Amino acid sequence: MTIEVDYRFPAGVDAERQAKVIAIGQTAGTWDARFSHREEIMRSHLGEVIAIKTEENGDSIATVSFPEINVENDIASLLTMIFGKYSMAGVGKVVGLRLDENYGKFPQFGIKGIRKLLNVFDRPLIMAIYKPALGLSATDHANILEQVAFAGLDIIKDDEIMADLDVAPTLKRLEACYPVLERVKQETGRTVLYAVNVTGSAEQLIKKAKTLVQNGANALLLNVLTYGFSVLEALAADPDINVPIFAHPALAGAMCASADTGLAYSVVLGTLMAHGGADAVLYPAHYGSLPFDAVEEGRIRDILRSRNVFPVPSAGIHPGIVPQALRDYGNDVILNAGTGIMDHPENPAAGVKAFFEALERCENQDSFELEKVPTGALRQALEKWGNK
Amino acid sequence: MTIEVDYRFPAGVDAERQAKVIAIGQTAGTWDARFSHREEIMRSHLGEVIAIKTEENGDSIATVSFPEINVENDIASLLTMIFGKYSMAGVGKVVGLRLDENYGKFPQFGIKGIRKLLNVFDRPLIMAIYKPALGLSATDHANILEQVAFAGLDIIKDDEIMADLDVAPTLKRLEACYPVLERVKQETGRTVLYAVNVTGSAEQLIKKAKTLVQNGANALLLNVLTYGFSVLEALAADPDINVPIFAHPALAGAMCASADTGLAYSVVLGTLMAHGGADAVLYPAHYGSLPFDAVEEGRIRDILRSRNVFPVPSAGIHPGIVPQALRDYGNDVILNAGTGIMDHPENPAAGVKAFFEALERCENQDSFELEKVPTGALRQALEKWGNK
Repeated sequence: MTIEVDYRFPAGVDAERQAKVIAIGQTAGTWDARFSHREEIMRSHLGEVIAIKTEENGDSIATVSFPEINVENDIASLLTMIFGKYSMAGVGKVVGLRLDENYGKFPQFGIKGIRKLLNVFDRPLIMAIYKPALGLSATDHANILEQVAFAGLDIIKDDEIMADLDVAPTLKRLEACYPVLERVKQETGRTVLYAVNVTGSAEQLIKKAKTLVQNGANALLLNVLTYGFSVLEALAADPDINVPIFAHPALAGAMCASADTGLAYSVVLGTLMAHGGADAVLYPAHYGSLPFDAVEEGRIRDILRSRNVFPVPSAGIHPGIVPQALRDYGNDVILNAGTGIMDHPENPAAGVKAFFEALERCENQDSFELEKVPTGALRQALEKWGNK
Repeated sequence: MTIEVDYRFPAGVDAERQAKVIAIGQTAGTWDARFSHREEIMRSHLGEVIAIKTEENGDSIATVSFPEINVENDIASLLTMIFGKYSMAGVGKVVGLRLDENYGKFPQFGIKGIRKLLNVFDRPLIMAIYKPALGLSATDHANILEQVAFAGLDIIKDDEIMADLDVAPTLKRLEACYPVLERVKQETGRTVLYAVNVTGSAEQLIKKAKTLVQNGANALLLNVLTYGFSVLEALAADPDINVPIFAHPALAGAMCASADTGLAYSVVLGTLMAHGGADAVLYPAHYGSLPFDAVEEGRIRDILRSRNVFPVPSAGIHPGIVPQALRDYGNDVILNAGTGIMDHPENPAAGVKAFFEALERCENQDSFELEKVPTGALRQALEKWGNK
């Protein structure tokens, strides 16, 4: 099996030459007569330039294939090979990556597994983020959870910057929130997932994840790019960590926001996350608060879904975007709102209700024009955040 | 204590506004009357814009200070805070980062410790990379090591793309090379370090590192950016891993090569590596084979040294650059050559000797003009690679 990578070079760069530099320099390199006894084996490790295309705007796309025997069926050794040293040449961007279906990991839960845990099969899932991001106590977390969980929320997660801090240590947050999750289950029969942010050095983090799961955590949140894909893989492979892993994209822009260098968002947040073992992946929605390309967003969605990974468009999500989100995503999506739930004019519970009202209006093909929306949670949300 | 970050914005971006977005949005965020009971605590988590400067070219530098209580005294939670979600706004670059001296980790060995292990105190260290990068057997590794180690080499490392592959599994490489290291010690009294590349999912990697050290590995190589800073920190904190850790910069260009997005090389390969626990850090030399800015290289060097971390300028290093390297670095540098040793016209041993001849000529202030260099290993190297 081979690994295929598309590198984009701007006009003026000799794409064929660069592609050869990559195919050779990022694999076996060159050798001389001293290694003739290894000739055949060396050759088997070489990459190969398999296509050079010129785009209308003058950019070139060079496709290089790499032997799978050069890597460990994981993301880190793959990244080191396809763009490790070469990234520092600063002249090209990885815009496509095709891996064999069996490369890396499959999600342990993914779309189907998370739906099964929640027993919700026929609508988008609604997810909230604890806000304010820092400064709440563990008890505050529990109080907020109580409001949103009983209002019908499916999933809640820590803010990605909420680490294991004195103000609300990770295990304390879980210990405060767990009884609420249990109570919701007993009183309503519904499961609500709380994706607890796992942090620390790799060894501590993995240990902490196990402790959290032992203490009732039913989902985890990981900042995959700041902690490392190798950490995601360790969590995904661990039989003791039998809960869905939500992957956060923090730092993705550092690798993906440049037009000419780094890697495409769809490669990092799509392909690498999907083969790294994530069950659900957060990324910016193009109608959200971060600038994001709709085409690239669509690619991420499709790549994730093709591997049963739940797409979670995020950042600036509020009830007013639900019609657009349903057009773009249909049902297999997790709509993830921070302030779009927590800062609802009424209260966070109304924020959750506004999302469900929005879903219902979409199902009934009711209008989202303000004057046609009855007084209530959705109407208040639309008044605050608009209907697009 | 606070953390200070300089963000650079191009002309046309409202730097003050962006800096406020960062100071608030990457910390506590906003809150309303419901959280008045937590007012003071919330405030203590907020970042603060402390300076906005405009550069001659119209760029602005905004400096934001962050409370240390928001992070875990590590690199991953720091990155998540200072540039996690905000990196996806795509309008600024992190060009400076000032941490308290006690933030994070100190190197376990660093310059002083590595010198002590090698018992070499008064000259640059010479380091080689096994080449060809892929395709050699474990026995080939041992044969190469024998040549270069007896020729006087200080340190050798795996190529960063040499993972734990069937062709030469990591432990087999060590098992083949260890007797050579022992023999050099017995016969010459010299210690030669072999930085073995540690790979795998985070849990496997840490376990493998311990196994390697138990089996005699006297140094490790880690692709910090593809495996994760949290893995570096785990290795650096582990009492069983009592050997120097060499940090490789693979993938750094993906985060650093863009002028307007991502983070500066000096932040990632300087500050973050130095506070992450690396003992020696590889990065491109500006006179090497990768395009690199001399000023940025100087910053990396100074940041690393200020924390006793060994700078290892790399990529395209050969004996002809020794005079320039000594001018730039003096003695506290590791000169790291791949093909610049392995592809010496004579053999890898001559490649090592050429470096030591070059060091001697520099000490004696002898010329590097080709006709003035006597026949021998250095002369051959200069004929092949030039004297600059």
